Amino acid sequence: MVLGSVVALAGGVGGAKMAQGLADVLGPDRLTVVVNTADDFEHLGMHISPDLDTVMYTMAGLQNEEAGWGLSEESWGFLDMLDTLGGETWFRLGDRDMATHVERTRRLRAGENLSSVTEDFCARLGVAARILPMTDDPVRTIVVTDNGRIPFQDYFVRQKCRPVVSGFEFKGVDFAELNPHVVAAFQASDLIAVVICPSNPYVSIAPILEVAGSLDSLYAVSAPVIAVSPIVGGSALKGPAAKMISELGDKPSAEAVAAHYEFLADGFVLDQIDCAEAEAIRARGLRVWVTNTVMNTHADKARLAAEIMAFAEEFSGVRASV
Amino acid sequence: MVLGSVVALAGGVGGAKMAQGLADVLGPDRLTVVVNTADDFEHLGMHISPDLDTVMYTMAGLQNEEAGWGLSEESWGFLDMLDTLGGETWFRLGDRDMATHVERTRRLRAGENLSSVTEDFCARLGVAARILPMTDDPVRTIVVTDNGRIPFQDYFVRQKCRPVVSGFEFKGVDFAELNPHVVAAFQASDLIAVVICPSNPYVSIAPILEVAGSLDSLYAVSAPVIAVSPIVGGSALKGPAAKMISELGDKPSAEAVAAHYEFLADGFVLDQIDCAEAEAIRARGLRVWVTNTVMNTHADKARLAAEIMAFAEEFSGVRASV
Repeated sequence: MVLGSVVALAGGVGGAKMAQGLADVLGPDRLTVVVNTADDFEHLGMHISPDLDTVMYTMAGLQNEEAGWGLSEESWGFLDMLDTLGGETWFRLGDRDMATHVERTRRLRAGENLSSVTEDFCARLGVAARILPMTDDPVRTIVVTDNGRIPFQDYFVRQKCRPVVSGFEFKGVDFAELNPHVVAAFQASDLIAVVICPSNPYVSIAPILEVAGSLDSLYAVSAPVIAVSPIVGGSALKGPAAKMISELGDKPSAEAVAAHYEFLADGFVLDQIDCAEAEAIRARGLRVWVTNTVMNTHADKARLAAEIMAFAEEFSGVRASV
Repeated sequence: MVLGSVVALAGGVGGAKMAQGLADVLGPDRLTVVVNTADDFEHLGMHISPDLDTVMYTMAGLQNEEAGWGLSEESWGFLDMLDTLGGETWFRLGDRDMATHVERTRRLRAGENLSSVTEDFCARLGVAARILPMTDDPVRTIVVTDNGRIPFQDYFVRQKCRPVVSGFEFKGVDFAELNPHVVAAFQASDLIAVVICPSNPYVSIAPILEVAGSLDSLYAVSAPVIAVSPIVGGSALKGPAAKMISELGDKPSAEAVAAHYEFLADGFVLDQIDCAEAEAIRARGLRVWVTNTVMNTHADKARLAAEIMAFAEEFSGVRASV
């Protein structure tokens, strides 16, 4: 395998798993994970960054694998007492998890930025890969639904994705400055691939791409851009991606995701169960890699990551010669 | 026993135990506990009210009896993770306890006052007695020491009361408005006693008395004012009261406490171990009640409270006729 660096764009669970696999295969010091922060929100006076935490906890090996969020070996005394005191408990906050939110909020209020706090937390949790919030500025996803415009966590957690989606707004994105380390990572001379992780295209990846400078930087890379489908067999392994595609008028499929990314991706990885769609995706001008994309075990993650790296090698010289 | 209402002035542990005993003997709806808030502080972005919490938790039967603060059946995931993340852990915050601080802070920031939050928390925790913060305005104890002027919790918890004390300042006390419910409780026509709990005279009781209107209200009551000595056998059962008396140039004793309160108290309760001091205290113009003042069990608290009520009956008519 060619030695070089990789940039991964990630949201929550799927992105975190993919990033963990890539760190395993590449060695952590060659991976930069750019994480969506548009699902960040203020809750109980704390700044909470759900995607950033999922990626950080997963790469530290501390994630709650079953829940898909939060920490393993968690306790729930805080939430239990909060319930007794009449507080809002719809957003599940574990006791250990609370330390992340309280301490991050304290440091942000003291004037530090999100990147710097994240870097320090990662160092303390033993995460060697670089995890970058897409921006240090506030961007907030608003889900436009038949039930009105709903802040993302309200839609996602409190309303359990029930409202029918008609669109998305990323409040603040026009004023957000792309994390300068993201630009540098895209421009690295040893970059061998950009991986769009199997995260939700609308609410995890789109916000990253909408930050000014993000797409331009991506267009300028000579390494292949490879997207991994979060839709497997017509549904999302986690989260509302399939439901959203459906409500926005398309059929949930790997091809629908490929159509979403064809303007910027060079390669597309889809699950073997969807192999019948490979031809149609190729017809959109994307190279295709078909494999088992479901990541249950650590070995699954590493194997998929290794295959993506092998896939990336197939592009050598191709894109540069266009 | 005469039926009537009682106002207790309280700080932390000793005050909380005394209040619990009084509530037991009187029935909770006849007790108002006025609690020191000068040891409140901002920590990790949260408003923390240690004395208020100790009284509230104790009267709810949820206190950690051994530690003298916090909740029983507590877990420590938050603090453990906070330590991993490099946060400040000198102030011990249990997981369940965190809910109190987070939710109170949220409600205060939303514009509610401390009295109202306290009233609601008490209702939710099943505390029927009325617990009143002395004021809704910020008052902060500064301990003047050989090591400089130190905020109270820093002196008390972080520096474990090691610096030598030369005085106290109650920042903000000149601008603090006495909780109007305190005035009303003092003016209640059925008031049968004011009890100054066995709390630290300097940092628990003094701040309450220094809020404008507090002393005037106390002077105006016709019911007896009875102080209970927090010094037993020359030392404090809990906290730095004896050390402070000593550093301020006096000998730690029940009499030293009586001298401190003689300007406003009518009666003084001291421990049987200090019975030799009874005569000197009587010579200061105070009636005296000697008994076992150490409250280990629930029964101890109730027995002491019942004795104080019996002591209060001895004053019937006396003070009114002065």
